[in-house]
Amino acid sequence: MARIVQKFGGTSVADIACLEAVSLKVKREVDAGHEVAVVVSAMAGVTNQLVGYAQALAGNTLTPEYDVVAAAGEQVTSGLLALALHQVGVPACSLLAWQIPILTDSIPGSASIQRINPYRVEECWRQGIVPVIAGFQGLTIHGRLTTLGRGGSDTTAVALAAAVRAQRCDIYTDVTGVYTADPRIVPKARKLKEITYEEMFELSAQGAKVLQMRSVETAMNDQVRVRVLSSFHDEPGTEIVPEKMLKNPIHVSGITYKRSEARLTLKNVHHESQAIADIFDALAEADIQIDMIVQNVSLNGCADLTFTVLKGEVPRVVDALQAKENIIYDDLVLDPNVAKITVVGVGLQQRLGIASLMFRTLANMGIGLQVISCSAIKVSVLVNESRAEDAVRILHNAYGLDKE
Amino acid sequence: MARIVQKFGGTSVADIACLEAVSLKVKREVDAGHEVAVVVSAMAGVTNQLVGYAQALAGNTLTPEYDVVAAAGEQVTSGLLALALHQVGVPACSLLAWQIPILTDSIPGSASIQRINPYRVEECWRQGIVPVIAGFQGLTIHGRLTTLGRGGSDTTAVALAAAVRAQRCDIYTDVTGVYTADPRIVPKARKLKEITYEEMFELSAQGAKVLQMRSVETAMNDQVRVRVLSSFHDEPGTEIVPEKMLKNPIHVSGITYKRSEARLTLKNVHHESQAIADIFDALAEADIQIDMIVQNVSLNGCADLTFTVLKGEVPRVVDALQAKENIIYDDLVLDPNVAKITVVGVGLQQRLGIASLMFRTLANMGIGLQVISCSAIKVSVLVNESRAEDAVRILHNAYGLDKE
Repeated sequence: MARIVQKFGGTSVADIACLEAVSLKVKREVDAGHEVAVVVSAMAGVTNQLVGYAQALAGNTLTPEYDVVAAAGEQVTSGLLALALHQVGVPACSLLAWQIPILTDSIPGSASIQRINPYRVEECWRQGIVPVIAGFQGLTIHGRLTTLGRGGSDTTAVALAAAVRAQRCDIYTDVTGVYTADPRIVPKARKLKEITYEEMFELSAQGAKVLQMRSVETAMNDQVRVRVLSSFHDEPGTEIVPEKMLKNPIHVSGITYKRSEARLTLKNVHHESQAIADIFDALAEADIQIDMIVQNVSLNGCADLTFTVLKGEVPRVVDALQAKENIIYDDLVLDPNVAKITVVGVGLQQRLGIASLMFRTLANMGIGLQVISCSAIKVSVLVNESRAEDAVRILHNAYGLDKE
Repeated sequence: MARIVQKFGGTSVADIACLEAVSLKVKREVDAGHEVAVVVSAMAGVTNQLVGYAQALAGNTLTPEYDVVAAAGEQVTSGLLALALHQVGVPACSLLAWQIPILTDSIPGSASIQRINPYRVEECWRQGIVPVIAGFQGLTIHGRLTTLGRGGSDTTAVALAAAVRAQRCDIYTDVTGVYTADPRIVPKARKLKEITYEEMFELSAQGAKVLQMRSVETAMNDQVRVRVLSSFHDEPGTEIVPEKMLKNPIHVSGITYKRSEARLTLKNVHHESQAIADIFDALAEADIQIDMIVQNVSLNGCADLTFTVLKGEVPRVVDALQAKENIIYDDLVLDPNVAKITVVGVGLQQRLGIASLMFRTLANMGIGLQVISCSAIKVSVLVNESRAEDAVRILHNAYGLDKE
């Protein structure tokens, strides 16, 4: 007997037929003698609709009332899946975040889980009942609802698995696992049998939409064994494991890209050493997140500074910089037509040639590298958006990922 | 300064534009210096959709999980209306039933409110905040969600008004008040300025859909001053008052009809005096609600027994009767094509001629009376469904309600 958390995403619970199929997946684990807790997302499209209503009234401002609206979809699914489980003879009971509770901080729209009380879930198991938990939701210590940000149900599932010391957290989704690249772009992309927490974290950060970043971080911190697998196809998925447990280490596990960012260059920033700090202070004050940063060699106390931010943030960046009189530069150049390509792999730590293979391959293709950024297990480059998909395909082949 | 509860129904909060209009109605009372609490229904159509999902999985069986699903719509509206109020500069905060709490019994799908803690609402007022309460929802002492049945938000509003000793409970809806008859059937129907609790209760019981019956009962018991008025037209509505406060007593205040019932006749029930009790015991055991009952004069210990039930209950009635061997009758005659016409008025208590005016009028029209049932302030007759609307129109004129 094991303790298992099963999480089903929006497309897995999109309609009544889907819910009935999910109920059978739960029943299978229950019949095998396991203690099963289920975490559900809102039915596909529902959260978008609710967020659309809130935005129509309040724009993009996230407030506690936004959370009250956005959290409603998961409540519906948890009740419906409990009903579907009753239909197949599995005793089940919905649990909402405030009933457990799942305590979070108070940041509207992207709260962080602070503590999950395991009692209500374990009490269900003692009574032979499957708890069906509404994902995405949280509760502040002041008794107000919160939500965990897009993909937050993944984090609910992993944090719950940690809280009840589950042997496994199975994330059921509309893909069959984690791929070496997006199969819609790279037809030869292969499903990975396993991947390390760190690689998965980088893939999520760099645009792979399989798992919410924070859920991977939680899994890593609490060493929760996570599997990503399909709701619709009965086949093995991808297991996320600590590096030391990798059975078949490979050097590069995935290539991903995102085009949600824009590049900004400040030409000839004056008093450069002072100004750089002022610039990033000003952006931090405005709560604007910077991704890549690069600065060329300083000449006569002046330098060009390039960085990337989410495209939607550009107007706020300009406002924030213009508000500070001590930030002086000759020109601001904006390029929204960029894409960031990232190669992720634990092999990058040990083998130096792996990063340069990326640069050489892209240069041979005539693709210019605008910005480069590296970390222990990833290399990212910014390229012209029009060449992004080409670049991903070529790199996928260059790193030997096209082969079985 | 007064304390006012405002309740807005589903069509009043049907979309973003409606919510913005509602926020101005709330703001008007706030600007007048009143302490305002708002109760909202789900957006029009939402509860039907949620109930449809639950029925697809569980049929018509009402369980605690049905309540979890059905209660979600009001959560959304309470958050959205709080956002709409922020937009017009009114501090506001959504409150869900479990946050207040609104304690109920545990009957799924039609729970009764037992107690509303006024603290959270009054705390909002102390802070100058308008509480926006999700109607329809309740919480059991075991911490599970419940719902109050169709139209339950009316009851939330009236019970809340009683709990905070509000001077007024304004029910905003898609009609401009309570009418002497359904204006779609009777073009000359007039809006009533006032009506007694008892009359309103009978009108609700007999098919008028303006207010949930239980909300009228609550208003009557707690002497809450209720007004029914339109969300869409700025005109005086109908005030529901104790009989002694009626300014212009009229004898008959409304004529209504419902065709949701079927008539059943058991021919020649044997051992009649014994069997009647057995029959209604059997139906009570099966939880089947009987409306009208009539029995003709007994001959040789045999009698015909006629009663009405909701049309959907007929198969269960037949099953319940056939399951009891000691219930013997010659034949069961079913007529689903019936309608119940009801005349409601406090005048019926004092003036005997009022009831017979109904019988005479219908007889002159050649409309046969199948069953008659009376109470202190109403007379109901069962007629053939095809003549129902005619009957309502003729009676509306006969009782002088066509005149201004």
